[in-house]
Amino acid sequence: MAPPLASWRSGPARDAILDFVEAVTAQGGADFVPPPERIAVFDNDGTLWCEQPVQVQVAFAQARLHQLADADPTLRRRQPYKAFLDHDLATIHTLGKQGVFEVAFAAHSGLTVEAFDKLSKAWLATTLHPKFKRRYTELVYQPQLELLAHLRENGFKTFIVSGGGADLMRSFAEQTYGIPPEQVVGSSVKTELKEIDGELQLMKLAELQSFDDREVKVQNIGLHIGRRPILAFGNSDGDLAMMRYTLSGAGRRLALLVHHDDDEREVAYDRNFRLSPLVEALDKAGDYGITVVSVAKDWAEVFPPGA
Amino acid sequence: MAPPLASWRSGPARDAILDFVEAVTAQGGADFVPPPERIAVFDNDGTLWCEQPVQVQVAFAQARLHQLADADPTLRRRQPYKAFLDHDLATIHTLGKQGVFEVAFAAHSGLTVEAFDKLSKAWLATTLHPKFKRRYTELVYQPQLELLAHLRENGFKTFIVSGGGADLMRSFAEQTYGIPPEQVVGSSVKTELKEIDGELQLMKLAELQSFDDREVKVQNIGLHIGRRPILAFGNSDGDLAMMRYTLSGAGRRLALLVHHDDDEREVAYDRNFRLSPLVEALDKAGDYGITVVSVAKDWAEVFPPGA
Repeated sequence: MAPPLASWRSGPARDAILDFVEAVTAQGGADFVPPPERIAVFDNDGTLWCEQPVQVQVAFAQARLHQLADADPTLRRRQPYKAFLDHDLATIHTLGKQGVFEVAFAAHSGLTVEAFDKLSKAWLATTLHPKFKRRYTELVYQPQLELLAHLRENGFKTFIVSGGGADLMRSFAEQTYGIPPEQVVGSSVKTELKEIDGELQLMKLAELQSFDDREVKVQNIGLHIGRRPILAFGNSDGDLAMMRYTLSGAGRRLALLVHHDDDEREVAYDRNFRLSPLVEALDKAGDYGITVVSVAKDWAEVFPPGA
Repeated sequence: MAPPLASWRSGPARDAILDFVEAVTAQGGADFVPPPERIAVFDNDGTLWCEQPVQVQVAFAQARLHQLADADPTLRRRQPYKAFLDHDLATIHTLGKQGVFEVAFAAHSGLTVEAFDKLSKAWLATTLHPKFKRRYTELVYQPQLELLAHLRENGFKTFIVSGGGADLMRSFAEQTYGIPPEQVVGSSVKTELKEIDGELQLMKLAELQSFDDREVKVQNIGLHIGRRPILAFGNSDGDLAMMRYTLSGAGRRLALLVHHDDDEREVAYDRNFRLSPLVEALDKAGDYGITVVSVAKDWAEVFPPGA
């Protein structure tokens, strides 16, 4: 077995993780946690994969809107669609996180969940990131893949709890992260059950059901997981409630925050990223007991070795 | 290893299950299904445990309302609380399934999810069924415990998808059925995240979030599981959409329906049970390709051996 966390540099973040896992798995130890309660939750955008210059969900919706605009050219003149179609990032950023995601989710209404899954898999297989020229699923963070594996080897169940659409994440999370669809919690749209040619199909509607951000992440942990996690990992203020909820339970707990401070290997950003700012969680990490992970200092590698 | 389904009598229902499991697990066979896609969904009330004379959720709410009425005696005069407090089953039945459950769910508002879990565990540990004089968790169906085990031994992931409150089911499903909280889908109330003494707590509100019945079961399968099941088991018209959705997918599939026709060992009921009638699913089982399971004929034992 490879040594755990090979792409993590020695330092306080790596130590905090290894110490935590050792403590909660030590039979008879004061901090022992039975395996069913070893629940770890991870944000996705910016925590498990790159979310710059826009979240992958937004790029996926742009592609879909180009198709829809071929059928209905008036979309090219109407906001907010125009901003998506023109790749006008400045205008997109003014919509705010939920506003942008609502447009992105609505772009796939009218598809069955199975048709959406096929479309998403095909798009992820063929689309390259504009700057890094790699597939998005190759822009996941290598240290986090190692952390997910290390946790599972130690009896943890790993979940995604992210603002991205659950269905987009489910289309690659099992293969890429080893996280099955039923352990992916995300934003969702309402659905309709329709009978088509005698068969029942679940259709995606345009209307938002849940925008899985901030306190809604905790509410969705209650709804989907039904247990308070003992480890949470995020990268923005949208993850702060989930991190604080995790830390509020009894017994040993760990909350970690990726700080994107490496403009050479990735993109350096925090409080100015309007689509998902990091302000309070960074400023108060010490007060809340959150361990900050520096991309520049703590990660020896950022992305997996070249494909 | 014990032979599978020991409490199932030889017959078409048992054969249908054994044939199905063999077919979808046969490597290289035409009906092979990879393990991650072996999703089985079970209704709970009337499918995994006894729901007569009222669903356990209703009995649990009655107990809570007695406590609340001690603090606020006006509840004793106000409907629908009066009917619950008087154990007036005739009036309770007139509320309909969703009406009854909404009252039941609201009875536990104001509790944190952890406090609810403790209360539920304590009540289930100490309360006996009025007729059978056993704990409710000892009124689960022995043949179904064997079926759940047989499915898991064959690489299935077993889920509950039931109209009962997810949190009540989660308080016993892991110990009783071997189904962890994150694989329990049920009805839910809205929650609120509150900071109490510097710690974040998730509080149950009175307002319904999702009544997990009929087509909502399918919508919640999409929301929580994200894959179409290949096996579904129910006992009422509330399960019909879930059974038909399961059967609508490509490849080999199985849907089963418990018919409670044994008034000696349990309670015989179907179309006249107003809190969860069985009419269309029974009448059209043949048309839809649903396998009917007779308690009287197919189950050699109903409940587990005496505690």
